[in-house]
Amino acid sequence: MYVIIVYDIKVERVNKVKGYLRTQLNWIQNSVFEGEVTPSELVDIKNNLKEIMNKNEDSIIIYALRTEKALKRDVMGVEKAPIDGII
Amino acid sequence: MYVIIVYDIKVERVNKVKGYLRTQLNWIQNSVFEGEVTPSELVDIKNNLKEIMNKNEDSIIIYALRTEKALKRDVMGVEKAPIDGII
Repeated sequence: MYVIIVYDIKVERVNKVKGYLRTQLNWIQNSVFEGEVTPSELVDIKNNLKEIMNKNEDSIIIYALRTEKALKRDVMGVEKAPIDGII
Repeated sequence: MYVIIVYDIKVERVNKVKGYLRTQLNWIQNSVFEGEVTPSELVDIKNNLKEIMNKNEDSIIIYALRTEKALKRDVMGVEKAPIDGII
């Protein structure tokens, strides 16, 4: 399945969230990651994010689709992170 | 069609972008809007965003899907904006 993760995390935790998601997905924009995952990988990602986030202060939205093909992506302005150009 | 718009806009323009998108879509999270639009409405939205944004400094990603049904949304932590609770 294909996921888009968008987050709004307090500054004291944001680097931890970003650092973790970089190990799992592709960084697309400041607070946006995308990538292909298995259902069990997604469960792990959710569990790890739950550990890192403060659920009373932070917000994370996970959009899941059956396939990336269901999605058309249009980037306007600065392209922060070409999808294959991640370190 | 169903769209998700995620933006990373410099502070001096962010309220203008947010204010405009609030007239068109549902506010979901700090920098995320969603909603059902026609193809011609989406063309208008893109044109208006182009007017407001600075394409050398700002980034806007528009995800378009044929239908909202293709999407599973999972919100962790703070729910900023219930989808029907927008002013």
